[in-house]
Amino acid sequence: MTTVVDLHTRLRGAVGEAGLVTAPDGMSGYLTDWRDAHRGRAAAVVRPASTEEVAAVVRTCAELGVPVVPQGGNTGLCGGAVPDASGRQVVLSLTRMRRIRALDVENQTITVDAGVVLQTVQEAAAAAGRMFPLSLGAEGSCTIGGNLATNAGGTAVLRYGNMRDLTLGLEVVLPDGRIWNGLRGLRKDNTGYDLKQLFIGAEGTLGVITAAVLKLFPAVRSRATAWVALGSPQAAVDLIGTVRALCGDRLTGFEIMSRQSVDFVLRHRPGARDLFDVVHPWYALVELGDTLPDAGLDELLEAGLGEAFDRGVAIDAVVASGSAQVAALWAMREGISEVQNFEGPSLKHDVTVPISSIAAFVEQTDRALDGAVPGVRIVAYGHIGDGNLHYNLSKPEGSDDDAFRARAAELSRIVYDSTSSFEGSISAEHGLGQSKAPIIGLYKDAVELDLMRAVKGLFDPGNLMNPGKVLPDA
Amino acid sequence: MTTVVDLHTRLRGAVGEAGLVTAPDGMSGYLTDWRDAHRGRAAAVVRPASTEEVAAVVRTCAELGVPVVPQGGNTGLCGGAVPDASGRQVVLSLTRMRRIRALDVENQTITVDAGVVLQTVQEAAAAAGRMFPLSLGAEGSCTIGGNLATNAGGTAVLRYGNMRDLTLGLEVVLPDGRIWNGLRGLRKDNTGYDLKQLFIGAEGTLGVITAAVLKLFPAVRSRATAWVALGSPQAAVDLIGTVRALCGDRLTGFEIMSRQSVDFVLRHRPGARDLFDVVHPWYALVELGDTLPDAGLDELLEAGLGEAFDRGVAIDAVVASGSAQVAALWAMREGISEVQNFEGPSLKHDVTVPISSIAAFVEQTDRALDGAVPGVRIVAYGHIGDGNLHYNLSKPEGSDDDAFRARAAELSRIVYDSTSSFEGSISAEHGLGQSKAPIIGLYKDAVELDLMRAVKGLFDPGNLMNPGKVLPDA
Repeated sequence: MTTVVDLHTRLRGAVGEAGLVTAPDGMSGYLTDWRDAHRGRAAAVVRPASTEEVAAVVRTCAELGVPVVPQGGNTGLCGGAVPDASGRQVVLSLTRMRRIRALDVENQTITVDAGVVLQTVQEAAAAAGRMFPLSLGAEGSCTIGGNLATNAGGTAVLRYGNMRDLTLGLEVVLPDGRIWNGLRGLRKDNTGYDLKQLFIGAEGTLGVITAAVLKLFPAVRSRATAWVALGSPQAAVDLIGTVRALCGDRLTGFEIMSRQSVDFVLRHRPGARDLFDVVHPWYALVELGDTLPDAGLDELLEAGLGEAFDRGVAIDAVVASGSAQVAALWAMREGISEVQNFEGPSLKHDVTVPISSIAAFVEQTDRALDGAVPGVRIVAYGHIGDGNLHYNLSKPEGSDDDAFRARAAELSRIVYDSTSSFEGSISAEHGLGQSKAPIIGLYKDAVELDLMRAVKGLFDPGNLMNPGKVLPDA
Repeated sequence: MTTVVDLHTRLRGAVGEAGLVTAPDGMSGYLTDWRDAHRGRAAAVVRPASTEEVAAVVRTCAELGVPVVPQGGNTGLCGGAVPDASGRQVVLSLTRMRRIRALDVENQTITVDAGVVLQTVQEAAAAAGRMFPLSLGAEGSCTIGGNLATNAGGTAVLRYGNMRDLTLGLEVVLPDGRIWNGLRGLRKDNTGYDLKQLFIGAEGTLGVITAAVLKLFPAVRSRATAWVALGSPQAAVDLIGTVRALCGDRLTGFEIMSRQSVDFVLRHRPGARDLFDVVHPWYALVELGDTLPDAGLDELLEAGLGEAFDRGVAIDAVVASGSAQVAALWAMREGISEVQNFEGPSLKHDVTVPISSIAAFVEQTDRALDGAVPGVRIVAYGHIGDGNLHYNLSKPEGSDDDAFRARAAELSRIVYDSTSSFEGSISAEHGLGQSKAPIIGLYKDAVELDLMRAVKGLFDPGNLMNPGKVLPDA
């Protein structure tokens, strides 16, 4: 039997005094997520400074049978990086590993440690006249390792893909402590199974990602942005079809928001103001980008919107003039998640359905929820070009908080059942973590679950890598 | 012990009389590849007409311990779809499964059986006003299943990615005969391990892909094409950097060819003619595309080339006028592989290195080969934007065929050792098949090979799915 003192001694040997945190005060920030939605305890927090130290920690924990919870910027939404309540687990924070190892302009790649903050990568790319396109609300504090572990999405997926699509190579510490060096910067490599794909999106349950080779892109040097009033989600689907057929790859952003979402921002965000005199049911934020500095994007966007008016798809639109107005439009979109907290308890869902099913999904789910909780306020918004809606709920105005909270599981079940009926996904970009792992079995093909369990058993037979995450029973 | 008669009876039960081929004449086309570079024997060829029939065949073979060799259009270059010489294996041809199951314009997806020919998918997409971008020489006969099994590349990877990047969902018959339905048409889905990635590029060694959901794109409605004379591979790398920084995503093709490659085409292809009066060491074929019908691409391309002239990167250039000239330029590029056969025995290599290492790779490898076989003719061409060279060799003019053939392994070893010294890949887009499986162990990290063997053992413990392919010892 290993005592906590033994464990600390062994871990100190692996990471040194500077890398070991055992005092309750020092550990507390690592034991809960930023929303304080999940809390856990830990036997220790370790902060290795190199891949070799990560390997030493994992090897030590494997020998002692101690579970390991990898953690990046701790900005996740499903508790995937938070330890359980046992106090037996070790949190392995990658945040001391923040070296940019290489930037190759000709190869359009950047090689970074897992603990590098996303925004740092964006800035390093920009300094080299290139772009790293992944963009999401937490970019100032989330890490590349966390982005990889959850296959992060965000607002640029429409044009540039998920984190998976942006990754050429990985370095991974396997559950037995071996280091796999798969840090290749190649655009084509067909020499066997593409193992990196297993670790991307696995939320640390198959190993610890310690570094990656990421793709860079030519810098975007002109943009145009519009705010469009729409009558329905189907109008948004029609609008994106119209704009994309005309503008092709210039379409770099397409976000939609229900009126309820916009109402909350107008109510709670100082300075936010409605762009139209009348209320509309839905809005779209449309963005074009081009590598040419003077690409005539405003005119092109106006042409696309003109076509949409002619076809009865759009009701009204404003093309932003100047960077302040562009920033105000994005602030409207990006403020939604935060302001919802001012309206009492909320339930958040991150779902995808095929784009062609979005309208039917919204209609069916809205109806079912209003039947269950009359007056429930549905805050739906998201990345319609990816079929990805953040389909969130706030309690009916003036109703009891606890009564709403008590029905959380029932209401989420309605949303997920509806998603599933359209062959959708109950987690588009947030992962499963500990909050969705217990229910994924309800929505996943039995054969697929079997294969997932088998892969987990192969890589991590002792179930020591982030146990309780992703799989319902691991 | 199962006799061949028993096996035929069982297979007839699985696929019916119409799906079973046992006569030597009927089987012969399935037992060798199109280049006749690999030949094998088989106990039977089965041609199932549905996923259920594929499952019945695989289940039957699993029960009887008979190896299965999945086969698509049989256009591979590494013998991955050709059975071994034992006569014990069953060839499973997917070519009767050629249904387009669905085309969803709003979702920009097409769902097809594995046996559908690539060109059929391209045409179906075009008929719906969309584009399926995968493009390669064999597109008139290769199948989607084969494209998936080898993670096919080709000339559009630069802009649209490999087959892996173009795939949203798969249906797979597992080695035990179970069917995994992973036919999701979602752009974002983070609900556990992305299992489809294991089957893509696995060359049928982990299961049989029977259907896929593929991404469609907006149709390209204008193009511009140029033929550029260059002094060196580094000039090509500089040129692609210049053009890409200016044109961004409009850059849809960038192929390079050594003078030796062009010489062979000029010598053997009727009607081929040199575009310049003087001989240049290297050439690039540069293509821009845009979804706008009138995008001013000729002017943009001329601006990019002008910048390249100013910087001393390009020596001379012609922007093609009219579709006949465009076709002539592409015929020059696409004719290389065929005409090389008229110059006696050849050795073909499909390698990738980081784009920033291409010039050094070519210089180092050229020198080593010329040292080994003075006068060896190096036919290097390919997709420089992907770092992918087809680095082929023809015997020295007038030398003995057999003497050159006898040194094949030695010369390939020089090319692959050089590739490896630049952290490249010995198979960019052709896969390993049976021709490179025996040597992959020389170039792959031991940890990665261990993981590959473990995954193979997990999915196919009996080693019955395309044994002898991909892995050196399976």
